[in-house]
Amino acid sequence: MKTPLRPLVLMAAIVATALPLAADEGMWMPQQIPDLAQKLKAMGFEGEPAAFADLTGQPMGAIVSLGGCTASFVSPEGLIATNHHCVQGSLQFNATPQKNLLVDGYLAKTREEELSNGPGSRVFVTVSVKEVTDAITGKIDPKLDDRRRFDLVERRVKERVAACEAGGLRCSVSGFFGGLKYFEIAQLEIQDVRLVYAPAAGIGNFGGETDNWRWPRHTGDWSFYRAYVGKDGKPASFSKENVPYKPARFLRVQSAGLKEGDLVFVVGYPGRTQRHQTYAEVKDTTEWSFPRFIKSAEEQIAILEALGKTDPELKIKAAGRVRGLNNSLTNRRGQLEGLVAGGILAMKDKNEKDLAAWIAADPARQKEHGDVLPALAALQAESDKTRARDAAFTGLFMSSSMLSAAHSAHLLSVEKAKKNDMEREPEYQERNWTRIREGQERAQRTIDARIDRALLSWAMGYVAALPADQRIAGLDKLVGLTPGMSKADSDKAIADYLEKLLAGTKMADKDFRLGLLDKTTAEIAATKDPVVDLALALDPLYQQNRELGKKRQGASMRIRPRYMQALLAQSGGLVAPDANGTLRFTFGTVKGKPGPDGTSWTAFTTLKGIEQKATGQGEFNAPARELEAIQALRGGRQTPYVLPAVGDVPVDFLSTVDTTGGNSGSPTLNGKGEFVGLLFDGTYDTIASDFLFDTVNTRSIHADVRYMLWVMSEVDGAEHLIREMGVKGDR
Amino acid sequence: MKTPLRPLVLMAAIVATALPLAADEGMWMPQQIPDLAQKLKAMGFEGEPAAFADLTGQPMGAIVSLGGCTASFVSPEGLIATNHHCVQGSLQFNATPQKNLLVDGYLAKTREEELSNGPGSRVFVTVSVKEVTDAITGKIDPKLDDRRRFDLVERRVKERVAACEAGGLRCSVSGFFGGLKYFEIAQLEIQDVRLVYAPAAGIGNFGGETDNWRWPRHTGDWSFYRAYVGKDGKPASFSKENVPYKPARFLRVQSAGLKEGDLVFVVGYPGRTQRHQTYAEVKDTTEWSFPRFIKSAEEQIAILEALGKTDPELKIKAAGRVRGLNNSLTNRRGQLEGLVAGGILAMKDKNEKDLAAWIAADPARQKEHGDVLPALAALQAESDKTRARDAAFTGLFMSSSMLSAAHSAHLLSVEKAKKNDMEREPEYQERNWTRIREGQERAQRTIDARIDRALLSWAMGYVAALPADQRIAGLDKLVGLTPGMSKADSDKAIADYLEKLLAGTKMADKDFRLGLLDKTTAEIAATKDPVVDLALALDPLYQQNRELGKKRQGASMRIRPRYMQALLAQSGGLVAPDANGTLRFTFGTVKGKPGPDGTSWTAFTTLKGIEQKATGQGEFNAPARELEAIQALRGGRQTPYVLPAVGDVPVDFLSTVDTTGGNSGSPTLNGKGEFVGLLFDGTYDTIASDFLFDTVNTRSIHADVRYMLWVMSEVDGAEHLIREMGVKGDR
Repeated sequence: MKTPLRPLVLMAAIVATALPLAADEGMWMPQQIPDLAQKLKAMGFEGEPAAFADLTGQPMGAIVSLGGCTASFVSPEGLIATNHHCVQGSLQFNATPQKNLLVDGYLAKTREEELSNGPGSRVFVTVSVKEVTDAITGKIDPKLDDRRRFDLVERRVKERVAACEAGGLRCSVSGFFGGLKYFEIAQLEIQDVRLVYAPAAGIGNFGGETDNWRWPRHTGDWSFYRAYVGKDGKPASFSKENVPYKPARFLRVQSAGLKEGDLVFVVGYPGRTQRHQTYAEVKDTTEWSFPRFIKSAEEQIAILEALGKTDPELKIKAAGRVRGLNNSLTNRRGQLEGLVAGGILAMKDKNEKDLAAWIAADPARQKEHGDVLPALAALQAESDKTRARDAAFTGLFMSSSMLSAAHSAHLLSVEKAKKNDMEREPEYQERNWTRIREGQERAQRTIDARIDRALLSWAMGYVAALPADQRIAGLDKLVGLTPGMSKADSDKAIADYLEKLLAGTKMADKDFRLGLLDKTTAEIAATKDPVVDLALALDPLYQQNRELGKKRQGASMRIRPRYMQALLAQSGGLVAPDANGTLRFTFGTVKGKPGPDGTSWTAFTTLKGIEQKATGQGEFNAPARELEAIQALRGGRQTPYVLPAVGDVPVDFLSTVDTTGGNSGSPTLNGKGEFVGLLFDGTYDTIASDFLFDTVNTRSIHADVRYMLWVMSEVDGAEHLIREMGVKGDR
Repeated sequence: MKTPLRPLVLMAAIVATALPLAADEGMWMPQQIPDLAQKLKAMGFEGEPAAFADLTGQPMGAIVSLGGCTASFVSPEGLIATNHHCVQGSLQFNATPQKNLLVDGYLAKTREEELSNGPGSRVFVTVSVKEVTDAITGKIDPKLDDRRRFDLVERRVKERVAACEAGGLRCSVSGFFGGLKYFEIAQLEIQDVRLVYAPAAGIGNFGGETDNWRWPRHTGDWSFYRAYVGKDGKPASFSKENVPYKPARFLRVQSAGLKEGDLVFVVGYPGRTQRHQTYAEVKDTTEWSFPRFIKSAEEQIAILEALGKTDPELKIKAAGRVRGLNNSLTNRRGQLEGLVAGGILAMKDKNEKDLAAWIAADPARQKEHGDVLPALAALQAESDKTRARDAAFTGLFMSSSMLSAAHSAHLLSVEKAKKNDMEREPEYQERNWTRIREGQERAQRTIDARIDRALLSWAMGYVAALPADQRIAGLDKLVGLTPGMSKADSDKAIADYLEKLLAGTKMADKDFRLGLLDKTTAEIAATKDPVVDLALALDPLYQQNRELGKKRQGASMRIRPRYMQALLAQSGGLVAPDANGTLRFTFGTVKGKPGPDGTSWTAFTTLKGIEQKATGQGEFNAPARELEAIQALRGGRQTPYVLPAVGDVPVDFLSTVDTTGGNSGSPTLNGKGEFVGLLFDGTYDTIASDFLFDTVNTRSIHADVRYMLWVMSEVDGAEHLIREMGVKGDR
């Protein structure tokens, strides 16, 4: 499955693309649609390009972000379709050992039965996108040093965001093409989101990790939420008095679906691609970051799975994390294969040498851009020096929800003490205070001292092994670690320390944790909670790294836009910017492809494959009632959801669209802009297309609307939702 | 891989087929070719049907049997092409722990380097097939009882064989259509067969058990023998003075190969199909024989693999047996899936009910055939009663080469004592004495007391567990077993007995073993060798079962031809008889097919798949020199062996021909009768076509001539053989 993304922070995605327009490459900005009109018409597009470019029109107005996943309105009553794997948090929030929604799924038969996703769940409706490049990067003294350059840009962004949000919307400013352009995006933020329907894991996650990122695929990766607002129609936090939101636009669900060769659109919020990182950056990813991530994910999964076996409650608490780690693990392995065995790193090397030669071939270009490649390489080399320590340091916070909560409370207290909101770190500006609180409320469902102990012990093992010149002094002192200590000694020191830490902390207590958010810096320190003490001990290095990061980002703001200018000039043509978590559309066709030698992949899978794969247990545990429904179909029961060309109900299908993590839950639209499926994955062999698009082999995987409707009608008894969507069996 | 067969004994294959002519079903007798001429022409056949029907003409005259596998002459100097998996015995015979031909393969650069296969290796060239039904089954008193009926038919067969062999050929009489017809087959028997070339296991058995019976496939399953004869041109046993045999016919090797949709012929010696067994027979196979076989094979493989790990010599000794068991295991599992999940058993039930209804619908038919189905069911029911004991009994002889050798020597001595050869059991007639001796000489390479001890212990475990009314008294007494004994007690008794048995026996000694073949019954008993004692203790039950078998076969001779008459009358049309180890041809087209849901199987695999699968070890250990040759090809090296439609050298391909075990090594011929590949396997999902042909999905797997020639030329340095075959790169 495509990775759901955490909401993006400004500047985190300053990389961009400049490949010449190829087959179906391109996560296009909606405003680029008119430029592509001719090609789209030729492929069977029946809409009006200008209308498609209108973010408040049909269908764009119906596309929403869940903050990490994409979704879409599919009824006038605020019903939202997204992926099953995008509602894991809601299933987990509402699950109990007695009633495990993660396994059994859920169906609300009435509005009253719709379950709150809990605090922090959001639906974002993009209402405007405005270019603000001049306002952000105009009139900057070229001599301004990198650190101050960063502050200036950050200040300008904060001011724009504040002005934009005065109107009651949620706003952000995002860089495109490596900071060559900036756009201000305004979104309506709906705060009461409820679970309506999720199929059983045996449908929604059928195939599990075995099939994840693979073809042939038979996953029914859909679920439904509903957006609620106050009686005045405005966003409001959860209340029984709230009413379903009535979206201005919703997608028409077309039960006729698609056939091979049809035009497909996917509209959504792709997170991040790296198609024009420099060679040095991709090399670091290939040789260090990904191998490190893979090792670390494997280790964490093993720890969490072992823990889950000791107690079903722990298994539920860790489920989302394990599924996310597994998903990312497979993704990184695939990317690494593409980078190394697939030759993408070597191609990057060649492309960069070509760019260098192209710059050097013309004195004017040499003067204008001659410095950018060495400068970016030097930036990367600098950060490489401390990467082992930095990864180990970050790992501490990632491994412990309690530690990151304590540190976050401390940082919040520091920023709150500043009178002027514009002076605060963006993450801790007043606009985010509610979110931070909701995050801590929501975290209660997953926090468990046993998880923190196991993962902190694992993370501290990495810290203990750091070389003498890369130590984390604060931790060394607290735990009693020294460079060169034997593993047995450091393990013992860590175990002793964690014993005390977790025996003494109150961070697992929701009230205590939420209470910290209202305290001053001094009051927090005065709690003397051992986890707070740990956070404070780690803070100096955090501050040092943040400062360094700002300086490097300032340098990047100075250099990278000129790198992108050179790349764009070298390649020419209409180019889509790299994904950065903003609304995009991509188009392609329904199409199979060659499989492993001696095989090919057909465009569609069918119910037949579920019969073939079903084992009655584990990852292939198709519900008995589904197998019975298939038997009934085989026995002659009528359904409008058969695709004649395959003589069966289609389950999933392949298309040539260009998607990445964050696209999860994106509606798949036909040439009329109607809903015909849900994008949920890509294929393993071309995951590395995030770095360099493979115009021949890249495929995305969609759940077919006909399978969704067939299950809703024949298996899960969700006819009331089919009626609500106004679906007609109009084949 | 298709199972190589042991030479068939008369009457062992009295089952036959009567399905109406469907897609590419049919293992046709060569004399049926003219009846199929119209269909063949339409499919692209360019030869003369009558010429194809001539067993001594082109190409039929070039097709030979190796006694279990098929092969063909491919040069005027007696060069023979067959499968790699058909030359395992020769590789094993010539292997040593220092020079493991089973792994490394072998290439004779000169005639002098060609290695004798050892005693007992044969090449049979079919020279005539003559219908003798009247002579075998004519004028038999309908009232003759079953036991005497058997003796009469057996006597007539022996007499015909003796008369036929007076001319110096090897003859047999085989029943077709369940004994409705009999044919006498005369074969030239070449006795000096030598190993010329076998690729490394990393090519010839690439994919091993993992890929066995599977697609996509990348196995280079070919090897070469050469037939030698005396200087007078007549068959002679091995001698340095012998010269290569000059066959009257040899196949032209066509390096241009085939493309998708082309007509394919396969000519060979398919062993046995069961397309018209009765429901009761198939039910017994499904519910008892196959599950029993699968369990037994799994257990034996585990025992032999564990033994092989203790000593490389043992591994070589057990290699052929392990590969054969694994192959049959996968085959039986696939057949069982087809019978049960694939619904073939249910279809058999329905078909038999249809036949019964068809018979009952007409008073004349009822009178003529009304008794056959109940009678055959009763025969099956009778043998079912003792099947557990009989399987355990047979298992004893199968598990120990020493025990079967001792018992065989005893039986031989009994028969030798009879003056008239016509009175002897067919297996022990004078014509087989040399073979029996050669078999014991050859066995020396695989005999090892450690194998016998382990497998006998396993086999006796089954005997010990038999119920009180099914005991094997001879063994009970010798070993000290009693019904209902605890497993611990019986295990101990067996271990103690085997300890003495193997400490005291001389059966592993070749001279002792061969010496028994010249002794009288009394002299054999007088050796007091403990393995001889065991054989003699088991002989009474053997005799009893043989008598019972003859009575049942007599009954079958009386009933089954009338069953077949009914079946043939019911179905009508041109029908191929069930396979019975005699020369047949089958035809079809090169064709892919749907794979598991969401995939399809292309008709060809290519070198690309070898690159994808190669792991450098185990079953996917493609030789480094092959991978280098692929790299050279990718780098632009020219070869005439590329198939343009796939842009690569084709490795294996699928066709719709109808084949089974025994067809291994069969040449694949194009519409002109030229050699374009080697049949070597079928696909797992349709293995059960032996019981009921699946006209949509059944596929056979062939090694492509272009892969063979490419490896011979680019990898293995066998250009001298390519020249000998007169191959021109005439694309």
